[in-house]
Amino acid sequence: MTGYFNDLKKEYVITEMRPRRPLLNYLWNETFLAELSHFGFGESFYRVSPLKRRRLILTGDAGRMVYIKDRQTGEFYDANRNYKNYDFKKHECHVGIGYHNVISEYKGVEVDFGITIPQEYSAELWQIKVRNTADCAKKISVITSGRVAANVTGHWAYGHANFDQNLGGLYFSHDAYDVEDLYEGIFFKADTKHSSYDVGTVNFKGLYNEWAEPQGLKSEQLSCLGMSFEENYCAALQFDLDLEPNEEKVINIALGVVRSREEAKEITDKCLVKGFYEDTIKGIKAEADRMDSVYTLKTPDEYLNTTTNTWLKRQISLGKTWGRVYGKGFRDVMQDVAGMASFDIEMARKKIKVCLDHMRINGNPIRQFEPINNEPYHDGASWVPATILVYLNESGDLSILDEKCKYIDSDVQDSVFDHMYRGLRFLLDNRGKHNLVLWGGGDWNDSINNVGYKLIGESVWLSIATVKAITEFCKILEIMGGKEEMIASITKEKEILKAAIIEHALEDDRFIYGFNDWGEKVGSEDNKEGKHYLNPQTWAVLADMLDYDSLQKLMNGVEQKLKCDFGYVQCAPAYSKKDLHIGRMAYFIPGGYENGSVYNHGVTFKIVADCMLKNADRAYETVKMIRCDNPKNADSGVEPYAVSNMYFGPQEANRPGYAPCSWITGTAGWLYRGITEYIMGVRSEFNGLRIDPCLPSEWQEVEVSRIHRGATYNITIKKTGVKSVVMDGKTLDGNLLPITEKGSVHTVEVTY
Amino acid sequence: MTGYFNDLKKEYVITEMRPRRPLLNYLWNETFLAELSHFGFGESFYRVSPLKRRRLILTGDAGRMVYIKDRQTGEFYDANRNYKNYDFKKHECHVGIGYHNVISEYKGVEVDFGITIPQEYSAELWQIKVRNTADCAKKISVITSGRVAANVTGHWAYGHANFDQNLGGLYFSHDAYDVEDLYEGIFFKADTKHSSYDVGTVNFKGLYNEWAEPQGLKSEQLSCLGMSFEENYCAALQFDLDLEPNEEKVINIALGVVRSREEAKEITDKCLVKGFYEDTIKGIKAEADRMDSVYTLKTPDEYLNTTTNTWLKRQISLGKTWGRVYGKGFRDVMQDVAGMASFDIEMARKKIKVCLDHMRINGNPIRQFEPINNEPYHDGASWVPATILVYLNESGDLSILDEKCKYIDSDVQDSVFDHMYRGLRFLLDNRGKHNLVLWGGGDWNDSINNVGYKLIGESVWLSIATVKAITEFCKILEIMGGKEEMIASITKEKEILKAAIIEHALEDDRFIYGFNDWGEKVGSEDNKEGKHYLNPQTWAVLADMLDYDSLQKLMNGVEQKLKCDFGYVQCAPAYSKKDLHIGRMAYFIPGGYENGSVYNHGVTFKIVADCMLKNADRAYETVKMIRCDNPKNADSGVEPYAVSNMYFGPQEANRPGYAPCSWITGTAGWLYRGITEYIMGVRSEFNGLRIDPCLPSEWQEVEVSRIHRGATYNITIKKTGVKSVVMDGKTLDGNLLPITEKGSVHTVEVTY
Repeated sequence: MTGYFNDLKKEYVITEMRPRRPLLNYLWNETFLAELSHFGFGESFYRVSPLKRRRLILTGDAGRMVYIKDRQTGEFYDANRNYKNYDFKKHECHVGIGYHNVISEYKGVEVDFGITIPQEYSAELWQIKVRNTADCAKKISVITSGRVAANVTGHWAYGHANFDQNLGGLYFSHDAYDVEDLYEGIFFKADTKHSSYDVGTVNFKGLYNEWAEPQGLKSEQLSCLGMSFEENYCAALQFDLDLEPNEEKVINIALGVVRSREEAKEITDKCLVKGFYEDTIKGIKAEADRMDSVYTLKTPDEYLNTTTNTWLKRQISLGKTWGRVYGKGFRDVMQDVAGMASFDIEMARKKIKVCLDHMRINGNPIRQFEPINNEPYHDGASWVPATILVYLNESGDLSILDEKCKYIDSDVQDSVFDHMYRGLRFLLDNRGKHNLVLWGGGDWNDSINNVGYKLIGESVWLSIATVKAITEFCKILEIMGGKEEMIASITKEKEILKAAIIEHALEDDRFIYGFNDWGEKVGSEDNKEGKHYLNPQTWAVLADMLDYDSLQKLMNGVEQKLKCDFGYVQCAPAYSKKDLHIGRMAYFIPGGYENGSVYNHGVTFKIVADCMLKNADRAYETVKMIRCDNPKNADSGVEPYAVSNMYFGPQEANRPGYAPCSWITGTAGWLYRGITEYIMGVRSEFNGLRIDPCLPSEWQEVEVSRIHRGATYNITIKKTGVKSVVMDGKTLDGNLLPITEKGSVHTVEVTY
Repeated sequence: MTGYFNDLKKEYVITEMRPRRPLLNYLWNETFLAELSHFGFGESFYRVSPLKRRRLILTGDAGRMVYIKDRQTGEFYDANRNYKNYDFKKHECHVGIGYHNVISEYKGVEVDFGITIPQEYSAELWQIKVRNTADCAKKISVITSGRVAANVTGHWAYGHANFDQNLGGLYFSHDAYDVEDLYEGIFFKADTKHSSYDVGTVNFKGLYNEWAEPQGLKSEQLSCLGMSFEENYCAALQFDLDLEPNEEKVINIALGVVRSREEAKEITDKCLVKGFYEDTIKGIKAEADRMDSVYTLKTPDEYLNTTTNTWLKRQISLGKTWGRVYGKGFRDVMQDVAGMASFDIEMARKKIKVCLDHMRINGNPIRQFEPINNEPYHDGASWVPATILVYLNESGDLSILDEKCKYIDSDVQDSVFDHMYRGLRFLLDNRGKHNLVLWGGGDWNDSINNVGYKLIGESVWLSIATVKAITEFCKILEIMGGKEEMIASITKEKEILKAAIIEHALEDDRFIYGFNDWGEKVGSEDNKEGKHYLNPQTWAVLADMLDYDSLQKLMNGVEQKLKCDFGYVQCAPAYSKKDLHIGRMAYFIPGGYENGSVYNHGVTFKIVADCMLKNADRAYETVKMIRCDNPKNADSGVEPYAVSNMYFGPQEANRPGYAPCSWITGTAGWLYRGITEYIMGVRSEFNGLRIDPCLPSEWQEVEVSRIHRGATYNITIKKTGVKSVVMDGKTLDGNLLPITEKGSVHTVEVTY
């Protein structure tokens, strides 16, 4: 491992200075996002508007630097990055919930460089604590530098920067002609008196120097020159500090984006008040603690406990606010909402409505909003009933069904329920010659994107997803009551679709993925490549497509054909030749993304499917295979506290098993649900909390604390071979814990 | 100075390793362009299509590296960049015509790293000569690295690279879905056997190393691993060489962009043949020599001689092929053509026609093509007659006037003459309430761009330019003959326009710049800022707007109000506050671009105007003021062999006098014409070569060799106080050298 968890502080401490790839943390609020490596490097973005989600504010490489200079010898080094690989006594990164600290110690100076993001402002806060750990007094300079991305338009002639006397800090202005983005200014201000400053990289770093050896540090003080027409500005301040042995001094800095110098003054006046930094972190942690308390589990697997109780929720929360950062996919948001509804029901309600506003009047939602991606993907509607069902189960609040939503291409407004039904009608009414659902521009596997434009190709996976969606829709109708007729009629349609899928798409140990516009099978044994796909099999289980033994056969096929040392590949064999009858996927490197990687989002579907078939050990083994501590893939590069979008598949030529993309993935939500609702088996239903565990054979006993509709259930599950559920001393009929009074606390003992 | 000229080789040798800013050279053919610093760094671009002019092929920073490693000690250094600032015995950059060599010597190894661009392929060639200058044998490795920009789409999953056995070189593939750019491959191949290679920056440089200390060099050999899904590929080859004392070995490398591996093989088979590199340079130099021979001058000013005879033509040639690199402005191309017609008449003819194809049917050309910029600038048509007149004078070929050209927004086709006239009609028929030409989206000063959208604002400068254009048009009509009626009628229109300009726009010592959409004056003493503009005064002279004394008064105003230590500012005082009644210019930093910089293009108009008023010393002083050897601005940063777009004006807050943008500017063409046609006074007319010198008082005698219509005129001009022109021993009446036989050579003695 690259470090260790400190559960008391809810921190991960990175102790390895040069891991396989930089380990990332994210800090954010609604308008500002920072991606941070274990050096404290990484880009910061400002969300200008829903359509312009990312304006760079801070450059990634060498973006945040803290240099320490001995004023007596002139020697200096960079405390957070250690470019020169000096023999540091300590170099740690504390990845926190809402903060990030890089701590180092060298030659008797300890530097703790902390970063957080205030919830109210488009800004980030730095807190630099410098302590003298030697036994003699020290005269040092602390020099901080932020590579602010002040060239908003790229037209250098608009830009200038200098120390602003009235602000008391550095101000970078880019007041350009004909630009909608009014946030033309970036400020960088400290609460501590600086002795000198720089704003131009040309002056601070120097044209021919590297960040390890900035020219500015070779003089006693920085240049204190303004700069204009600069490609790369930097915000550098020098603080001269005298430190007695063991003395610590603290410098707070605020960096942010504003419309005017006046606004910069207002914000910094608030952000740089003593205690503001600490209060910001306290606020974020309190909210995280609240979310954690909704579902806390205790199993023999410490890693599972830590990541499920805290870190998966943190990762889901990033998606909750920023979607996939580059944009908000309809299907992504719908799934994320299902993952987070238990701990943020208000946000869930809001997001469902925003999402449905992006449905077309024909019932087919657009692919992505903020910004709009209008490609004619066909799967959007299939995700709606599941998420609404989760919302109803979690909240007990049927009123959402009557809420009005818009359509993106019409003035019509109707209810959430109408949207859901219109979506199902789109799926049911757009069928091909095998009576399966038309593939259109694509489905979940959005890299099979050239198979259905002619509206001939049919997606088997999407047809299965439609079956599943109708089942969920019927559950909602049941909850609503008095909908027997509709249930009967749509169930009939479902059965017809189901029969067509089985008739045309079942092939020995698999469902194929579909028929393309040219009438060719995709994902069939008949294909030369891409013979076997994961999702149609796992979703056949999720949609209850066949009898138990037949489903088990499908899942055995998955074990035989798709398993590798670190998970299950999305398809096999990967495409090695570009193929316009498939699309983008067949242009990807073999083993990359959908083209045969261990695409973890898909693997989490498989975990749920395993549990539904009561393949408990398979489910848990799968969870462990895609973890960073899988001994067969211990050097994947992934953060121990985040899940990755994918591991390169075994067919990848150069780095199989490597995990390049973490944090920004729907995997988090599904893995969380897979563990909490299916392995632990504690999931909310409309009338109570279902207890349906599927524990691996090596576990004898687990504990869950779950808050549902305001009541707390402290549940112990033991394997005794005897089925019983005892709540507050009373044995229940069945395994559904009833809804109880808000604020009440219950003890539940489950044996099986 | 940062180095010295070697006129024999037509080279500039840069001897300063750390000049104020990197000194640039350009190499190019029709489809490939490399911008090179004195380290050999700089981006290379491929021209995918007229509309996609720039696809990055090689990244700038650390883009081309040549490392030398002692195989016995393992010590290594980078020979071209010298990141670690070792004590090199030599570090020079030879800026050549069509080549670029970085030569260094350190610890007994001399490395000569040469770069050129073959005229036939989208590629660049490297030639690395390594010589043992020590007196003992050496075992070294040469490791070259090119930071190829292989991620065409930015979607990493399409990319993979490795050594290609069949090609015998490195190949970077990015065969993406749905991309028009078929040039998906980049090759990097040597003519010398390599011992190892790398394609991934992660492997070669290392994730945590800098380019000064690549991880790959710490092992005996590079990794020889393929790479995929890499953000930054690099093409690295290691060659192990044994060198006896004074022995030299040569490695040739070709790097380029192709549609397939097969094409890479074909091209490298041709490019890496022995002698190809040398022949490429020979070809480029031969063409440069031919161009140089068209006009060679000899004055007491050595710097003027070298730059005018060779380097200005080189700079003009870049514009000739690549326009302003980012695109081709209608007015820019028209002016460049006038600059180059004397030495590339065929290209001039072609460019005039291409340019005119981009006129709108209403007579107003678009702002820019390749790619299209459709903003409604109004000045395009005013540049046409001057350029066509230059073409006629230079070629004597009237047939161009009948050539058919298109309009960009119509199916109508008509002649070059019709286009020219339609253009004048656009200017004459779109007038405002002072009867001046409407400003529209702007004119030459394209940063005064918010003054005329309402079609109320009128441009005085453009009105003056229209007067000048009509005069030139009439000269063309005279050449054509039989056009007396048209001359009379349009001259009448000209006089009316002229009278309106004088009536409404003349203000004591200046013409104002115009009236904006709000009826406010621009460039008047009444304004708070931007009171005095340079171009209306200089163009009043060019257009012969007033009598001599009145014009002299205008130019005296220029001397008094706009002069600074290093030239003449475009306007004064610069705008310090953003102003929507002006436009972009008033958002620029004061002293930047049109907002009060010494905008050299404008200064060259002034040089011509000075000559037209026979202010000979002013003209020459102005030439010297904007040169890199102006002692009052000796550290401007500009290359001694290129002219700059601007020097920051004296009002610029941080770096007045600094020259950030060289090479890419229309200054070159006008400065060339100012010196050759106006100071030397040797300019072509339709019936011969006019001799009208305007030599500064400090010169007594100059020589010019000029090829005109195929005949060579070797001209000596002496100041004797007696006016006479003697050609081949015969005294001529007047100062027009007659057209003579192609291939003939004449001696001309001019005194005055």
